[in-house]
Amino acid sequence: MPQQPLKRVLVTGGAGYIGSHIVLILLLTRQYKVLSIDNSHNSFPEALKRATEIATEALPADATEQDRDSAVVEAFSGDLRSRENVEKVFAGSPVWGVIHVAALKAVGESSEIPLDYYAVNVGATIQLLQIMAEHGCYNMVYSSSATVYGTPPVVPIPETTPLKAESVYGRTKVMCETILSDVCTSYPDKWRAISLRYFNPAGAHTSGRMGEDPRGKPGNLLPLLSQIAIGKFKDDPLKVFGNDYPTPDGTCVRDYIHILDLARGHLLALEALSDERAPGSKISPDIFPKQGGKFKAYNLGKGRGQSVLSMIEAMRKASGFNYQYEIIGRRVGDVPDLTADPALARKELGFDAPLELDTMCEDLWRWQSMNPDGYGQ
Amino acid sequence: MPQQPLKRVLVTGGAGYIGSHIVLILLLTRQYKVLSIDNSHNSFPEALKRATEIATEALPADATEQDRDSAVVEAFSGDLRSRENVEKVFAGSPVWGVIHVAALKAVGESSEIPLDYYAVNVGATIQLLQIMAEHGCYNMVYSSSATVYGTPPVVPIPETTPLKAESVYGRTKVMCETILSDVCTSYPDKWRAISLRYFNPAGAHTSGRMGEDPRGKPGNLLPLLSQIAIGKFKDDPLKVFGNDYPTPDGTCVRDYIHILDLARGHLLALEALSDERAPGSKISPDIFPKQGGKFKAYNLGKGRGQSVLSMIEAMRKASGFNYQYEIIGRRVGDVPDLTADPALARKELGFDAPLELDTMCEDLWRWQSMNPDGYGQ
Repeated sequence: MPQQPLKRVLVTGGAGYIGSHIVLILLLTRQYKVLSIDNSHNSFPEALKRATEIATEALPADATEQDRDSAVVEAFSGDLRSRENVEKVFAGSPVWGVIHVAALKAVGESSEIPLDYYAVNVGATIQLLQIMAEHGCYNMVYSSSATVYGTPPVVPIPETTPLKAESVYGRTKVMCETILSDVCTSYPDKWRAISLRYFNPAGAHTSGRMGEDPRGKPGNLLPLLSQIAIGKFKDDPLKVFGNDYPTPDGTCVRDYIHILDLARGHLLALEALSDERAPGSKISPDIFPKQGGKFKAYNLGKGRGQSVLSMIEAMRKASGFNYQYEIIGRRVGDVPDLTADPALARKELGFDAPLELDTMCEDLWRWQSMNPDGYGQ
Repeated sequence: MPQQPLKRVLVTGGAGYIGSHIVLILLLTRQYKVLSIDNSHNSFPEALKRATEIATEALPADATEQDRDSAVVEAFSGDLRSRENVEKVFAGSPVWGVIHVAALKAVGESSEIPLDYYAVNVGATIQLLQIMAEHGCYNMVYSSSATVYGTPPVVPIPETTPLKAESVYGRTKVMCETILSDVCTSYPDKWRAISLRYFNPAGAHTSGRMGEDPRGKPGNLLPLLSQIAIGKFKDDPLKVFGNDYPTPDGTCVRDYIHILDLARGHLLALEALSDERAPGSKISPDIFPKQGGKFKAYNLGKGRGQSVLSMIEAMRKASGFNYQYEIIGRRVGDVPDLTADPALARKELGFDAPLELDTMCEDLWRWQSMNPDGYGQ
């Protein structure tokens, strides 16, 4: 029986930490032809090479030519702000859908260079949607963030919480969700979009060959802990911002989700965008309302909160490194508890985040110790 | 005594209805060198020619060369979505400030082509702000709209009302205000912006040589009434949408402001952005907070509501035309009463809208009867 032609799916920001793991998970399914566009701003083409290597090694002995092709990412080097760069990607065979990950993502930085954040995160998204429409491509999975909730009135946080971002970064995410919702509402027979609100993605691929490689000192806790464990930042003691929050041990609580679980959520979202369901699929047949726009937002979290101190302890267990830390005052803008209510994604997408905290830390540590300098400068 | 060099001010959308009247008011002051960029989408270069003619005719006999220059608008033909087009405008002598009027503006259309609205109104604004920053230009007067209030909980509407736009068009305006506010907050020593929330601008210049020339059948009541009075749309009876609203005569109430009063509001906003005050200026010396971003929003309305039926009666008096109309059901999205609370603009900008409804209708009728085909196709 001849194989169906592969659906072509573009991952923007495909060489970044989150993007490259999504690319890998897509390659491993052998059900898509995966394209990537990335400007190497906070990412490395090497990540895509390794994803292709891992997927190619995983091919069965009797792999067809199409299988072999599906294990190779077609990587474009380009910037989403450039219409020419994006059009190059769409110039070939039709693209079925886009997983739009590319964005600037640092909350603190976003208040320092707000125009860059608006240009990259909002302006380029509008242009991307226009180019998609010009090429008849109407399916998008959008990378949103738990920051859209600001300081949530209810924890665990359901998707029905009013959006009230408290940073420029968060506002760019709210704006893009609003734009997507409006576009889907105006063209209910064409556009479909799923927005995935990430909680705290962390960890690395089990192989130790792919992981997070932030430029400069990591702004997030886990990559900072793993870099400290390999000996970096010796003269810069680890700081814990506040231990007087209304949480079990007084430090801030976040919902860490393994990067591979998060990436698999995108696979489910892609399937949910289409009318087809794989045999045995747990995705609800009608995630979109019958009337109105086909736009839906889901939390991607584990639904379990971890305090800063419990993360330090988990990384101590994984790395054997005995962290010294200093407790200082609260940091402006920090929210005590950001834990997802994951019920909707579980019910409608069949989404689950089974990988546990220990696995996450072990995987991170494997990546970090095998690649002390990340993908290499 | 030698004259001070003129401040260069760019009006985007300068050839449109609102833009061209702002250009004219600026030219008449002889205090600015006025630039315009316009793509003739819903506007006519002829409007700028006439503004220059009117301002030149108004020059005193002893006008200096600089005075003569200040009466001539420097018009660029270009689209704000094109970086090249915008950079051309900034390539010459430094531009001191921008009055950013250019936008798509039809509420109904905005839900039909939302991506165009987001690209033109939001994407192009982000790019304009970037180009301004690259050229050291940090002053903006922004054209916002009463639609940012959605269905207001309190009428007359104060600026403190939470923004809750109920159309794509309205959301583009809220997004731009948000972006401007963020940019001003991040760079309090550089950026200053004033957002002017227009209620219902109407009428025309007293000369009858400049006015509104909408393409196709007018979407707004007053231009529709004036075109009906010159004999258009004979087979298409005038419709009044609903007479069962909680208003004095049951029809919707809007706050009509004469276009020349509205335009003069921009002159005050420009002065308020600078640290200088003209002699006798009524502008408050400190409209911006001492701490934080220099962004402020003001209503531009008369503060007096007029019902649909009272507008029909006023246009009957001005034109002598005996309107026949049909009352049909309410139109989706219409709000009973949108009347401005104009107190803040009065207090801080010294803004007043003295021109009365009769004058507005007479000026409109003069323009329409002198120019039955508008600026001529």
